[in-house]
Amino acid sequence: MEKFFNPRSVAVIGASSKKGKIGYEILKNVIESGVKVYPVNPNREEILGKKCYKSLIDVDGEIDLAVIAVEAKECIEVIEECGRKNIKNVVVISGGFKESGNFFLEEKLREKAKKYGVRIIGPNCIGVFNGKNNFNTFFQRNMDLPDFGNVAILTQSGTFGIALLEGFANENIGVSKFVSYGNKADVDEVELIKYLQDDMETKIIAMYVEEIGRKFFEGNFTKPIVILKSGRGKLGQRAAQLHTGAMATNYEIFKGACKQKNVIFADDFEEFFGIIKIIAMRGIPKGNKLSVITNGAGPSVLACDFMEDAKYIELKEDIIDLTGSATAADYINAIEKNDADILLLTFVFQDAPLTESFEKLYEWLEKNSRFYISLALGGKFVEEQRKKLAKLKIPSFEEPRVLINSLNKILEYSMRK
Amino acid sequence: MEKFFNPRSVAVIGASSKKGKIGYEILKNVIESGVKVYPVNPNREEILGKKCYKSLIDVDGEIDLAVIAVEAKECIEVIEECGRKNIKNVVVISGGFKESGNFFLEEKLREKAKKYGVRIIGPNCIGVFNGKNNFNTFFQRNMDLPDFGNVAILTQSGTFGIALLEGFANENIGVSKFVSYGNKADVDEVELIKYLQDDMETKIIAMYVEEIGRKFFEGNFTKPIVILKSGRGKLGQRAAQLHTGAMATNYEIFKGACKQKNVIFADDFEEFFGIIKIIAMRGIPKGNKLSVITNGAGPSVLACDFMEDAKYIELKEDIIDLTGSATAADYINAIEKNDADILLLTFVFQDAPLTESFEKLYEWLEKNSRFYISLALGGKFVEEQRKKLAKLKIPSFEEPRVLINSLNKILEYSMRK
Repeated sequence: MEKFFNPRSVAVIGASSKKGKIGYEILKNVIESGVKVYPVNPNREEILGKKCYKSLIDVDGEIDLAVIAVEAKECIEVIEECGRKNIKNVVVISGGFKESGNFFLEEKLREKAKKYGVRIIGPNCIGVFNGKNNFNTFFQRNMDLPDFGNVAILTQSGTFGIALLEGFANENIGVSKFVSYGNKADVDEVELIKYLQDDMETKIIAMYVEEIGRKFFEGNFTKPIVILKSGRGKLGQRAAQLHTGAMATNYEIFKGACKQKNVIFADDFEEFFGIIKIIAMRGIPKGNKLSVITNGAGPSVLACDFMEDAKYIELKEDIIDLTGSATAADYINAIEKNDADILLLTFVFQDAPLTESFEKLYEWLEKNSRFYISLALGGKFVEEQRKKLAKLKIPSFEEPRVLINSLNKILEYSMRK
Repeated sequence: MEKFFNPRSVAVIGASSKKGKIGYEILKNVIESGVKVYPVNPNREEILGKKCYKSLIDVDGEIDLAVIAVEAKECIEVIEECGRKNIKNVVVISGGFKESGNFFLEEKLREKAKKYGVRIIGPNCIGVFNGKNNFNTFFQRNMDLPDFGNVAILTQSGTFGIALLEGFANENIGVSKFVSYGNKADVDEVELIKYLQDDMETKIIAMYVEEIGRKFFEGNFTKPIVILKSGRGKLGQRAAQLHTGAMATNYEIFKGACKQKNVIFADDFEEFFGIIKIIAMRGIPKGNKLSVITNGAGPSVLACDFMEDAKYIELKEDIIDLTGSATAADYINAIEKNDADILLLTFVFQDAPLTESFEKLYEWLEKNSRFYISLALGGKFVEEQRKKLAKLKIPSFEEPRVLINSLNKILEYSMRK
């Protein structure tokens, strides 16, 4: 797996000289990572300042990783060439395989790779990202990329994958490794989860899956895994099949398997992101008694409604409503007096008495670490404050339901450990 | 009601000279609106450049509206003074009444007002906002305020109220009128909804309530009403009682009443906002057949899962997956060929082939209006694109569940009409 994340040299087959084409963008991103690059395109002498080769065969020197972005049919021959060049790691970006009904073509791809001992990530994916050095095989642009950290991402959707990366970047959460593995013709979630459970840099694993087999649940999991699975009912299963060739599975059985292995499953993307965010920023709470402290109670009242069904959360007492006249000192006072395991702080940053003094609050929160989760709704000014909270690694939410349900799932995980 | 929204002169009782105090901030906001202002504070000669009065009695000249921000106990006397000065409209910002257990005090407030024919909004609220001229009685700062438009807001939570205002401002949705009515000691939702149903400037009404009576549901509703109600179970009801003195009501009965009168109720804040957003930007769809067009199918697969239980939406066909190589032309092509009532466009703006050409897409979408709803997940760059969609009045979402459920509730409303 190492050469997927830390290749010293990369060949991009299907490299394009036209800006906006997938083969151009991948090449550009790989060049920017600083590794040695071999663009392969029979119709070009040079692209983006790099000598271009007619085929892999023409390349001198060792190639650690090949990234393929040509038509599906052409991929088979390219794998053959990879095999003969002793390239053992390949990312096949191209779609048009099992998900398009071309089962036979995907089978040929797999067989060809197996013949030479070539490992394939994909097809029909966006490849890899290494959080440590930003190496990636993406054809995306204008992305906010996260710093290096200990959250790993496995995904069968490039779209959800980059949404996670950008979300983490904007919440000050770091990423170790990212693999978009598409149709999983070869490398699959069973192999990837084992790799990540053993990977020293990874402490939490986030997975978006459309198909996940029984074999996955036979693994040995010491690190928390959070899964968002789609393909739950007829419509979704049909869509998943057309997207990654996923086979229909029973969602109840999936959820049961998760509970057995203490794998956390999320009901939707926001909950998925919320759960990972809380664990990454604050860890797992040591107890489940929660107090709410607020200067504007509306959202907290709604949070209490969601707590009704959140059976792993214990609301310790009535909402501590400091009212709209609350200052930083009022919050600090209330927190100091409170021995709850979890403190849900709802902030109305727009309320002037708080605005006048919140810098003091931030300083104090930084020095007095507790299991804080926050709720704050608003526009640009509130967004700035939420970024400050993220810097302090205090997870902040805008929707009470997501906060409560995410926390509830974490507490359930904690109790089952 | 007019004088609540268009006062020519306003007295602020409890005005403060100290920045950050509620009485200061309200005064500042009222001054900024340009109306004639009379600060009342026995300890000051002048605040923010305005002559300050020892009491209301000392004020010469007519006062259309009084905004009161003194201790609860003192409010009674102030109402008496309002009565004697023939001020018929009062906003009581102050808390410390029914919600704090002071039922008797709130009763006295009501009686005192009734004695003089004074109408009270509040107590324990943030008052009013007029979308046409930005007049407001807020003590908030740094808010993104919306333009004038046809969405009205009624709320028993100042916090949720300003979250709506800021959300609308950032989504290019205009507001006609806003009333935060707190404990509703006098003016309540029955009177307010009638006023808004008759108000020419208002076409959609958004309500956050903690308590809502049977009388409300006897009203005659021609305009769509969307309600977010908290206080659904024991925990929430307790919290609502301590927040606005709300009485416990059965949530199932509330939902039943909504269905009978075809009032839309939202399950959470995001759905609440999503429903209003769609109606405000696109109106009500003329049919329920929906097609999905995307360049990155993950979120659409999850959307299909949520469509399984969204019984008012009919998925017309398989997801139209243009893949990551899609350009603006591919989207335009796909839309032109498609006669669905509703077009769910999922955009992966980060995919370079789309990035290269999306200006062309925006131009075309503007000239070819259909019932578009969009899904786009990402960071700062995607946020910019979502703002462009908002300018085109195309509602955009980040969570498939919220999009689908909001749309489903709108279709249910449409079918019941």
